[in-house]
Amino acid sequence: MTQVDLVSRLADALPADRILSGERAGDYGADEALGAVAGTPGAVVFPESAAEVAAVLAAAHATGTAVTARGSGTGLSGAAIPADGGIVVSFERMNAILDIDVDNMVAVVQPGVTLRGLDEVLAPMGLVYPVYPGEYSASIGGNIGTNAGGMRAVKYGVTRHQVLGLEAVLADGSVIRTGGKFVKGSTGYDLTQLLIGSEGTLALVTEATLRVYPRPAHQATLLVPFPTMDAVMQAVPRVVASGIGPLILEYIDLLTMNGMVRIYDLDLGVPADVVATTVAYLCVMLESTRDERLEEDVQSLAETLTELGATDVYVLPPRAGTALVEAREKAFWLAKGANADDIVDVVVPRAAIAAFLTRVGALAEETGTFVAGCGHAGDGNVHLSVFQGDADKRADVMTRLFSIGMDLGGVISGEHGIGRTKKKYFLALEDPAKVDLMRRIKAVFDPTGILNPGALFD
Amino acid sequence: MTQVDLVSRLADALPADRILSGERAGDYGADEALGAVAGTPGAVVFPESAAEVAAVLAAAHATGTAVTARGSGTGLSGAAIPADGGIVVSFERMNAILDIDVDNMVAVVQPGVTLRGLDEVLAPMGLVYPVYPGEYSASIGGNIGTNAGGMRAVKYGVTRHQVLGLEAVLADGSVIRTGGKFVKGSTGYDLTQLLIGSEGTLALVTEATLRVYPRPAHQATLLVPFPTMDAVMQAVPRVVASGIGPLILEYIDLLTMNGMVRIYDLDLGVPADVVATTVAYLCVMLESTRDERLEEDVQSLAETLTELGATDVYVLPPRAGTALVEAREKAFWLAKGANADDIVDVVVPRAAIAAFLTRVGALAEETGTFVAGCGHAGDGNVHLSVFQGDADKRADVMTRLFSIGMDLGGVISGEHGIGRTKKKYFLALEDPAKVDLMRRIKAVFDPTGILNPGALFD
Repeated sequence: MTQVDLVSRLADALPADRILSGERAGDYGADEALGAVAGTPGAVVFPESAAEVAAVLAAAHATGTAVTARGSGTGLSGAAIPADGGIVVSFERMNAILDIDVDNMVAVVQPGVTLRGLDEVLAPMGLVYPVYPGEYSASIGGNIGTNAGGMRAVKYGVTRHQVLGLEAVLADGSVIRTGGKFVKGSTGYDLTQLLIGSEGTLALVTEATLRVYPRPAHQATLLVPFPTMDAVMQAVPRVVASGIGPLILEYIDLLTMNGMVRIYDLDLGVPADVVATTVAYLCVMLESTRDERLEEDVQSLAETLTELGATDVYVLPPRAGTALVEAREKAFWLAKGANADDIVDVVVPRAAIAAFLTRVGALAEETGTFVAGCGHAGDGNVHLSVFQGDADKRADVMTRLFSIGMDLGGVISGEHGIGRTKKKYFLALEDPAKVDLMRRIKAVFDPTGILNPGALFD
Repeated sequence: MTQVDLVSRLADALPADRILSGERAGDYGADEALGAVAGTPGAVVFPESAAEVAAVLAAAHATGTAVTARGSGTGLSGAAIPADGGIVVSFERMNAILDIDVDNMVAVVQPGVTLRGLDEVLAPMGLVYPVYPGEYSASIGGNIGTNAGGMRAVKYGVTRHQVLGLEAVLADGSVIRTGGKFVKGSTGYDLTQLLIGSEGTLALVTEATLRVYPRPAHQATLLVPFPTMDAVMQAVPRVVASGIGPLILEYIDLLTMNGMVRIYDLDLGVPADVVATTVAYLCVMLESTRDERLEEDVQSLAETLTELGATDVYVLPPRAGTALVEAREKAFWLAKGANADDIVDVVVPRAAIAAFLTRVGALAEETGTFVAGCGHAGDGNVHLSVFQGDADKRADVMTRLFSIGMDLGGVISGEHGIGRTKKKYFLALEDPAKVDLMRRIKAVFDPTGILNPGALFD
């Protein structure tokens, strides 16, 4: 189909001033995935309703045109990179918060709502939507596409655990609703869960019903230096098993912490002699509805961590705690600013992080690769920046790194998704029987293959 | 295939002393679903390994023989009722707890492990697997099949939220492993979540990795009489929104409570004059790792409930509290003993329970039907016993009752599943587009339709 034909066809689906084509569409060809090649969409559309999305998909279905959904474009695996000549459906105008239902403790939102936008409405109501993947401009729709996680998952779980229901448009333009304002159901297969994390390859989400929670008033941040990485990683399972229920349980290696302190001008109050003997830090945030419980938990945790070999335990002043957590959220930008060649968000069982890092360290040394990072230690989710300028060597390092993670019982991505940039590793390393099931599930939803071709599968 | 052919074929898959046929197989023709017609299996097999399950399925696949998985046979929707002449795969011999991994806070179990068996191992370790659907002899495999819930779901979620990974045998006898000892992942479609709640229609689970939690040492049970059902149901959302995080939040209507008190000889200490003015009770259980926090929470909750219109608040002595909760767990047996004609476990948004019960009350009155019940009020999951001897009238009442639930934003079953006994309502009332997607997903996993035919779909 020619560019003119495509645009004229789309003009039946929505007003012309909400269709971009030609050069102006080019801004929608990439997301934040490092080293990914941008696509050249034939058109970008800005629907304002499920009906308009349905009309766009019906047109795409009839003409066999590729369709890629796009939230805020903050994804890290290239799942929002469109096929050349395809349609980008940008959800930036579908950004209404439709309902905050306190009796059912849910928020009903359109997919273009950002985490910041939702939090600005929930915070004054004493509520919180707990998924914080480190980028407040990220959209709920994008979060659903990749099953976004982030630092608070160790307490609240990831996007999959918060999404109770969806409205979604199928490849042929028909609309379904799944789930609802309830947390349980056993009424046929769980289509909600199937769509979450499917990276726009099964359907386009046009509305989501999300769990919200009471917002605990009191928080404390502990920064805990350790002399060895092993000691950090042995402490992590003990903190989880203690039942203290940390909101955040992160590890930050020395190099990443040094970068964060320098770039974000952090003043953490750790004496130079302690810094000198530190290999990695735990960053633990606790929260509570009652101040005295928080203090008690902080005290108890500090004792536990000291017994587990921490050099010291620093309870940060609120402002420094916030600054540290914000800096940690920006670790990706630190990696990007340092010209990392690729990033990794492998998940392994939390007790296997030490073994994973040891084996990755040996791999890095053997291949002359530089690797640094941090991670959601409580979840076993390790974020690494990989510096290896040689593309062939890097592909080999990445393959071996993912293989180490899988060998330890993990998977390639904990929260970024596979998209386009991790696809070759996924297809090479995942059990072919499972990939085959997934391909056939995709064919159920998208028989002509128009939904985000190039992501997840070839 | 003749009976003799089937048994001889199965004898290649596992030893002859683990195959039942003929009359002796008849004990495996039913589960606990009320009013369901038992099936007559051609054979029952008792595998001891995934390899044996795979061999059975390969034989079934080759011969087009139906296969129905069976845990403890405690299901309430007929999902364990086999097709006549088909194979029942009983998991009662695959009941090993393979691993309790404290560092990763998971238990790895075979599907025949019962909730009681798992709890007996976890309790001395200070751990808990929190799914309690009210029947401790239920198996983990059966729980996964129906996405079992129960009273503690209001705090911990349902089976879906606890199962981190599976080993499963596909219809053709091939074996896949999904997920693992971690709580998050974004690496292709979530096959774990798809298999949970699929009632044996997609694959046979042969191993599960489950989350376990620290077991709080202190518990308190509050029994709270209310003068109207509306007042009960208005209190429920307030308790959830308070952030106090109850372990159990049940409502029990007057008739059900009277039956429980009589049959289970409960001594709850509620004075006769209070009983006389009570229409329904809330039963709230709180738990905490620290005794003084528990007492503080009990005090705070009692004040809240009094403000919300409770007649009084009784903090039960531990033994009475346990007896009440155990009696509540046996509500199904109470209904069965009272010759209920059918049972219902509709889910609606928790704030819609009052409206649901009002409309169901009007329906009952109009049709001369008697309805009584209780439910997981915190989850919006209403359990009703339906007494209507006329089968045609009963089918009409059930259809209208489910329609009311769906009209209020709910679904037919919260935790029992669809199986065979709720299938006609599911197929009549569910969006045909969604049922069609589900049928086609089934065909991906089970192209020849041998897995639990008659359950979920016709």
